[in-house]
Amino acid sequence: MENVEKMKAFFQKDAFAAGIGLEICSVTDREAVITVQITDGHLNANGCVQGGMLYSIADFAFATISNFLHPITVTQSGHIQYLRAAFTSSLKAVARERARCGRNTACEVTVYDDKDEVVCVCHFSGFVKETAAH
Amino acid sequence: MENVEKMKAFFQKDAFAAGIGLEICSVTDREAVITVQITDGHLNANGCVQGGMLYSIADFAFATISNFLHPITVTQSGHIQYLRAAFTSSLKAVARERARCGRNTACEVTVYDDKDEVVCVCHFSGFVKETAAH
Amino acid sequence: MENVEKMKAFFQKDAFAAGIGLEICSVTDREAVITVQITDGHLNANGCVQGGMLYSIADFAFATISNFLHPITVTQSGHIQYLRAAFTSSLKAVARERARCGRNTACEVTVYDDKDEVVCVCHFSGFVKETAAH
Amino acid sequence: MENVEKMKAFFQKDAFAAGIGLEICSVTDREAVITVQITDGHLNANGCVQGGMLYSIADFAFATISNFLHPITVTQSGHIQYLRAAFTSSLKAVARERARCGRNTACEVTVYDDKDEVVCVCHFSGFVKETAAH
Repeated sequence: MENVEKMKAFFQKDAFAAGIGLEICSVTDREAVITVQITDGHLNANGCVQGGMLYSIADFAFATISNFLHPITVTQSGHIQYLRAAFTSSLKAVARERARCGRNTACEVTVYDDKDEVVCVCHFSGFVKETAAH
Repeated sequence: MENVEKMKAFFQKDAFAAGIGLEICSVTDREAVITVQITDGHLNANGCVQGGMLYSIADFAFATISNFLHPITVTQSGHIQYLRAAFTSSLKAVARERARCGRNTACEVTVYDDKDEVVCVCHFSGFVKETAAH
Repeated sequence: MENVEKMKAFFQKDAFAAGIGLEICSVTDREAVITVQITDGHLNANGCVQGGMLYSIADFAFATISNFLHPITVTQSGHIQYLRAAFTSSLKAVARERARCGRNTACEVTVYDDKDEVVCVCHFSGFVKETAAH
Repeated sequence: MENVEKMKAFFQKDAFAAGIGLEICSVTDREAVITVQITDGHLNANGCVQGGMLYSIADFAFATISNFLHPITVTQSGHIQYLRAAFTSSLKAVARERARCGRNTACEVTVYDDKDEVVCVCHFSGFVKETAAH
């Protein structure tokens, strides 16, 4: 839980993440897990979770693992492949670093629905800026 | 304005897009333009527009042009490259179709800040499902 | 080795893959491994493996795992992030399926140099056409 | 033609590009055009141009425009969406810079067959290293 508290503090001023209900669930060297309880405000015209919302939870999972492993990391690019419509009461995003070389990091994020089915798979690249003073 | 009204009706139940303030500004065969007035709720921990928010306006611009040109189009994948931090009072996303072949469409979206500087460039692929009855 | 022979037969008419020296090394339900011995003809102006060559081995690893798991799969899109220059005598590409839903598959490929350092990480999406008659 | 000669000199040691037959056709501030005459050695098992070959011409078009506009540019990532099978006697790749900010460049490349139909659309990101001494 110490890691979770640390990353909550890191992102405490992220108003967008808070506003859409993202919760940092767990953080280890291996992975970060973000969850969200789905409400009507997350849905698109078809009644499933909107594509921007799906990307946003994935992006926040990437930001969490990469800034945990090596702050400050800024996102350079994100890629998302949608696999199924998300008719679900909650989402879970799991982020892992696949490789790092110098200041460049490559991470994968998978987003699951409440049946643990994969909703989308994502890839993010980040650039590690000068290390935060701790 | 007729096109704008048509697409507003198409997306009127998109609660996520409405909740984050996205506005359909103009729609032609050539391009769709989406705008948003930035508020504190759109910001990240650094005080600039959050990455998920930037993707969300781009994704909605893609959804607007592709569903205008050939409904119903579902998003298969999205790619976003971030170029500069968005310290801005508004955003504008401009979406154009680059190519279509059969049921597959390829669109580009560029997001601009209030100085008309490019914030991020995006690419989306979509699959055109059976045409909506009109 | 049976799997390898099967996939070699599947790709025996792939003249481009043969011409650039790609070898199917192993294939299981879990992963496909492609290798290549680097020669001067694979290099760019800086003397390291050219970017198109790096993509090509990754793409072929994706094609191998996806057509092994569910022929015929066609590539819809590919994404590659380059992490380090490949000054190396050989390359190895390892492809795994991350998720599949209906006819859509999502695979990751990692390319390693002869020191087992990651050169690039890739993501591919494919569409499974009607199953080949066997 | 002066620009073409300049870029041919820049890439004269790119053995992979030469080996697969890539030709720098024209270069201006606005776009770079690469062409290739298709031979049996470029084909896949289905008799159309192989996916790695399609990426390779696009990547080289990106490398040409970006190193013409601001040498030395290294590729950070590439994304390719395939739209139709390339049964064709030649290919043409047209690369344009969409945006640049500081040392980061974002370029699009479109690849056409001999009927001027779009085969694939691509997006590349590059990092501009210290300018070459000229």
